[in-house]
Amino acid sequence: MPKIVDHDERRREVLDATWRVIGRVGLEATTVRRIAEEAGYSYGVLAHYFKDKDDILVSAHRLAFAQARDRIMAATADRTGVDALRRAMLEALPLDAERFLEAQVDVSFLGRAVASDHLREIRSKSNADARWLWAAFVEQAQEDGEIAPDEDPELVADEVMALIDSVSIQAIIDPERVGPEHQLLLVERLLGRLGARGAGPTG
Amino acid sequence: MPKIVDHDERRREVLDATWRVIGRVGLEATTVRRIAEEAGYSYGVLAHYFKDKDDILVSAHRLAFAQARDRIMAATADRTGVDALRRAMLEALPLDAERFLEAQVDVSFLGRAVASDHLREIRSKSNADARWLWAAFVEQAQEDGEIAPDEDPELVADEVMALIDSVSIQAIIDPERVGPEHQLLLVERLLGRLGARGAGPTG
Repeated sequence: MPKIVDHDERRREVLDATWRVIGRVGLEATTVRRIAEEAGYSYGVLAHYFKDKDDILVSAHRLAFAQARDRIMAATADRTGVDALRRAMLEALPLDAERFLEAQVDVSFLGRAVASDHLREIRSKSNADARWLWAAFVEQAQEDGEIAPDEDPELVADEVMALIDSVSIQAIIDPERVGPEHQLLLVERLLGRLGARGAGPTG
Repeated sequence: MPKIVDHDERRREVLDATWRVIGRVGLEATTVRRIAEEAGYSYGVLAHYFKDKDDILVSAHRLAFAQARDRIMAATADRTGVDALRRAMLEALPLDAERFLEAQVDVSFLGRAVASDHLREIRSKSNADARWLWAAFVEQAQEDGEIAPDEDPELVADEVMALIDSVSIQAIIDPERVGPEHQLLLVERLLGRLGARGAGPTG
């Protein structure tokens, strides 16, 4: 009788192993063979999931976005307005080791996307999802009267995502300059310019 | 008698050839061999300039920054205040094919810098130079009374550079969405939020 394989469960195991390997040895040194060892599967089984380096990168990218989204949802479940927007932004910034790893995956992905239609397409789709999420926070803050009603939520979402992209880059390039304190300062400057009248950063 | 080689001139020729090859075949497909053919030198001579792919990338990065800087200086020679700041920003954004190529080089460089101390160091130095340049424009606009005197020029420079980084990324990922019109809109939003009272975008 053939062994029954739960493909979703195995995929999840493989993804978790991928993330652990990236965290331990870095994205550059992450190979299909290392992920196979970590997950306890043969190279042959893993080759079914990852054809090449770009496949590993796509999985890592999806995992990073899913993790950030889960954290954002958890951090804002009982919050509204600018308070929720601020908390969501903090979950997307490289403020600790786990999120710094997400930023590294993100910037590596962008670099390889320059020469890859396939990676650009995947990133464009992720961006559209993210833009939708950020615009929803902005709209909620507008309903609460905390962001001016004439602001275009999609444009503000662009600016939020621009801040996250650029802080991710700068935290990698200049980690001493763009540490947590500087990141929080940039968040407050953006919120301040939106005429945000929500609870302060410690609220 | 040995042939007298003007090393600076040859370096310049090699750099120009590097840029032409990148423009024609893209950074991924750019090799030392192709640059040698383009420059009309032997592979052996070129190997003296480029040890590996990262060396090509470093040269391309330096060239892109130097080109942008030259354009910024030319575009702002007889300008001051927010007018000069705006014109400088436009020279740094991917508004045409040449500057789009600079953005591609920049994002490729960032991606590879994630795993390279050497590339991060070079980028950190370039960023410090750029920050100095942008802060000088901000200070001049403050002297002209066009940006509020209590703004920290270095922080505003951070925001200008964040906009340029993120627009470069988005123009690569979503070229149809983040075309010239959208880029100009984001510039005006940033300037508007600085309380900039300079000449309008057509001034």
